Amino acid sequence: MKKIEKIRHSLAHILAYAVQELYPQTKFGIGPAIENGFYYDFDLPKKITQEDLPRIERKMKDLIKENIKFKKKIVSKREAEEIFKDQPYKLELIKEIESENVSIYESGKFVDLCAGPHVKSTKEIDLNAFKLVKIAGAYWKGDEKNPMLTRIYGIAFESKEELENYLRIQEEAEKRDHRILGQKLELFLFDEEVGAGLPIWMPKGAILRKLIQDFLFEELRREGYEWVVTPHIGNLNLWKTSGHWELYRENMYSPIKIDEEEYLLKPMNCPFHVKVYKSKIRSYKDLPIKYAEFGTVYRYERSGTLHGLTRVRGFTQDDAHIWCTPEQLAKEVEKLVKHALKILRMFGFKEYNIYLATRPEKFAGTEKMWKKAMAVLRYVLRKRKLKYQIDPGGGVFYGPKIDIKIKDCLGREWQCTTIQVDFNLPERFDLTYVDRKGKKRRPIMIHRALLGSIERFIGVLLENTGGALPLWLAPEQIWIIPVGSRHKKYAREIGSRLKVLGFRTRIRDENETVSKKIREGEIQKIPYMLVVGDKEMEAETVRVRQRQKGDIGEMKLTEFIEKVKKEIEKKK
Amino acid sequence: MKKIEKIRHSLAHILAYAVQELYPQTKFGIGPAIENGFYYDFDLPKKITQEDLPRIERKMKDLIKENIKFKKKIVSKREAEEIFKDQPYKLELIKEIESENVSIYESGKFVDLCAGPHVKSTKEIDLNAFKLVKIAGAYWKGDEKNPMLTRIYGIAFESKEELENYLRIQEEAEKRDHRILGQKLELFLFDEEVGAGLPIWMPKGAILRKLIQDFLFEELRREGYEWVVTPHIGNLNLWKTSGHWELYRENMYSPIKIDEEEYLLKPMNCPFHVKVYKSKIRSYKDLPIKYAEFGTVYRYERSGTLHGLTRVRGFTQDDAHIWCTPEQLAKEVEKLVKHALKILRMFGFKEYNIYLATRPEKFAGTEKMWKKAMAVLRYVLRKRKLKYQIDPGGGVFYGPKIDIKIKDCLGREWQCTTIQVDFNLPERFDLTYVDRKGKKRRPIMIHRALLGSIERFIGVLLENTGGALPLWLAPEQIWIIPVGSRHKKYAREIGSRLKVLGFRTRIRDENETVSKKIREGEIQKIPYMLVVGDKEMEAETVRVRQRQKGDIGEMKLTEFIEKVKKEIEKKK
Repeated sequence: MKKIEKIRHSLAHILAYAVQELYPQTKFGIGPAIENGFYYDFDLPKKITQEDLPRIERKMKDLIKENIKFKKKIVSKREAEEIFKDQPYKLELIKEIESENVSIYESGKFVDLCAGPHVKSTKEIDLNAFKLVKIAGAYWKGDEKNPMLTRIYGIAFESKEELENYLRIQEEAEKRDHRILGQKLELFLFDEEVGAGLPIWMPKGAILRKLIQDFLFEELRREGYEWVVTPHIGNLNLWKTSGHWELYRENMYSPIKIDEEEYLLKPMNCPFHVKVYKSKIRSYKDLPIKYAEFGTVYRYERSGTLHGLTRVRGFTQDDAHIWCTPEQLAKEVEKLVKHALKILRMFGFKEYNIYLATRPEKFAGTEKMWKKAMAVLRYVLRKRKLKYQIDPGGGVFYGPKIDIKIKDCLGREWQCTTIQVDFNLPERFDLTYVDRKGKKRRPIMIHRALLGSIERFIGVLLENTGGALPLWLAPEQIWIIPVGSRHKKYAREIGSRLKVLGFRTRIRDENETVSKKIREGEIQKIPYMLVVGDKEMEAETVRVRQRQKGDIGEMKLTEFIEKVKKEIEKKK
Repeated sequence: MKKIEKIRHSLAHILAYAVQELYPQTKFGIGPAIENGFYYDFDLPKKITQEDLPRIERKMKDLIKENIKFKKKIVSKREAEEIFKDQPYKLELIKEIESENVSIYESGKFVDLCAGPHVKSTKEIDLNAFKLVKIAGAYWKGDEKNPMLTRIYGIAFESKEELENYLRIQEEAEKRDHRILGQKLELFLFDEEVGAGLPIWMPKGAILRKLIQDFLFEELRREGYEWVVTPHIGNLNLWKTSGHWELYRENMYSPIKIDEEEYLLKPMNCPFHVKVYKSKIRSYKDLPIKYAEFGTVYRYERSGTLHGLTRVRGFTQDDAHIWCTPEQLAKEVEKLVKHALKILRMFGFKEYNIYLATRPEKFAGTEKMWKKAMAVLRYVLRKRKLKYQIDPGGGVFYGPKIDIKIKDCLGREWQCTTIQVDFNLPERFDLTYVDRKGKKRRPIMIHRALLGSIERFIGVLLENTGGALPLWLAPEQIWIIPVGSRHKKYAREIGSRLKVLGFRTRIRDENETVSKKIREGEIQKIPYMLVVGDKEMEAETVRVRQRQKGDIGEMKLTEFIEKVKKEIEKKK
């Protein structure tokens, strides 16, 4: 066990010790180390609140200063029952232990039923590197039928710097929470009556989606993709043929009856794209064939795991499928990896972790097929000198995959690009192409999404930028603010000149103060605000406020246009 | 009854008379007049086929020439039973008649149980204006448990010219069948395993959809619409609030269970758009608010009624909802009607019938609300001097509507634009806006689709153009055909110059003859084919073949570009 985990677990005991000192009648639940900290569950003689935490924390620090030693003892279950005779929860735990002896830990006057390990003494704990953060209710053993205990959460690190860094990131992450930004910037909404995990895109969000989709459309057209559009439901027979019914059912929703048949909401687009492939005889000369779709799919997620746009029940994949000859596979995968990294860079993501995901427990196809596909993926990653980690058992049921997880500016990792080799669907749907010699052969199929889910990608984009979307993606790029009503006409002139050039502008000519409009523009993260008054009107200029920079001076409109054009160009 | 109906009904009797003469043991079912013709059901002593029809038709003509009179007689049921004692089907019909007497018609040696009316004599029937066309099986009384009879269909008109015109249109319609064109032009496909009524759009069809959607996007942006994107399923609660569950359920599919809740595939987008309206406090200054979406909806259709793209189970509406004050309603409806007719014209539809659809049996809202809305719709149609017909009971459950049905080049009518007033959803969802005085008021909601369903519209577009889509909509606009392999480079140069300008081109440089490629291009209705050989390469020109016109001569590429640009401009 890592040292920090021992520290966190030991702090849980010290927390319990402090509570025992402050609230002597307390009955103790359990207290493990968790990610970034620890908690302990208590059945307290009186209700406590968030405000009691500093007092408990002070008590903990006093105890830590006493250099308390953690002593492990092995005792018989009978002895343990004697020690914990006033602790009903501990007694319940002892009963459940199968071995004859149990391990307990003594630290000062506090004794706990515990397998350890712990630090040797509280000397090893940095007084300034932990913090109690939260109180919550928690059922004993997580079961609603059991009593509700009070859980106290703490966070803990090895050093004060690490703690402060963590708190800073937390604070920053909260400010960048895409759920809050989405509301503030009027991008999307969730509605209880519509259903959990089903985002509704408001006008500004719909524009953002369209900008991303139009950009991808052009990018993919140049890469030789063709587009298809497919339905959101398919007959159960289709999902039986594809293998989804057998191997992916837990992620799918219950069937819809139509007349005597059953239909399923699609969790993936692949079987539909397969049908387009199969609609013609294909020659080796036609391969690779690439079909792309912004396909909206529906997958089951437990309501507890839903989170804003990053975990939803319905989402749009920038999906595509590629059919190629076995000889073309490595080249196509390489092109995909290259293209994915290029696209991510254009959205401002320059750091990422790459994972090679291997065979899961439930899988289709033969082991030989899996090996062959793995070899190709590994070869490509090595050839392009890309560092990668293995994600054991993380493959989809039909084949191994390369996942690219982008790292945002807070170092958090987000699933994004996925490139999946599939030897399975071509078999199941009996896909063929005619080779050079006129013989029927089996093509290989690649599933790939570059952004992954447009919903999640926008969520990540918002958290990465804190809502300050790059100019080319900002739903409103330029506000034009006339100082007084006599400047409205000039503002509108400028507005229409910019609009003709394709800029997304808005004239803010309501009867409010200029400073109020500027404040609002700052909150809404508008990239540019052009203020125009007497001086500007006369000189035929605009006064430019740039996001994050403020007033950057007066300039001719043509000069401003050159500037923003250049900024948009830079992306490409 | 119109004369033509009497003729058709009389021809059914003459058909039965001819069959009686040719197959004396025949038992007779019924024989009504139908649209464009008539049929008669027979229980024949021997199987007949399509090849027997000319013989029967000849016999009919011989009988007609005899100037047979149709004589009506009223007889008692007992007398009738005596007359039809060898005709079990007629006896069954007599039993079902409630009155004491029945009417029979005698024409020559044929007697039928029949209420009439008929022509006085076969003199009134034009020998050359009818035709037997088809044999089919039909259960007696349409019930599978009854015996299968042989139904002979005929078509009939008052004059030979009318018959010929009908046959010509029929033949033309068959050639223009969008289901066949869709396959030939590789636009879309249906797949049994995917499910009936669920079109899959192949690359060329997906491009056509995108062209239409991009065009509408720009058109609507200019009209002040904003875009939204909403999910394809919604919680049952939403549909209960909206009234769909109560009043539209027969068109909806069975619920999907998610955890403990039930969800429904959306048959309409309105409740979702309502949620966006409701996400903010709205002021009278914000109205009208217009939200548009290419929303894919799913509605139940019996499998027997499905037909290509014109009747499907899943389709994409070019949907929008407008919220306005009661004072704005007439103006907004007028704008909509005007805009709809403009858009339809741009797609080549210049003729249409307008319908004003009134309250159906199941309806929401009060009678007063319906009256008010009807008055506004009527006012707008009159103001714009548009002829319209009443469609009694054709309104949606939430309000009356104006439907615009376009007429294609064969004079067939197709449902297209719909503009629906809704006083109901604003009530049910408690939608408000703040008026000039700061008071909360109820906005009026308009549902409208200009094309209606993109699927159906494309179907109609194909039938109207016979697949020769206008240049701006052709998935492939220009083919470039090098004569020999030494002209490939020049062809590619021309190709890339055209591509840069946004044209959808394809280089046809496969090892096939030029004439084969031209034939293929004609079948695929390619608007322009540029053939380039030695002469063109040297003179830096192209030889242009225009769809339907053939070779229109050699010209400079710039000249050609000007020509096609102008052709595309003309649309606007």
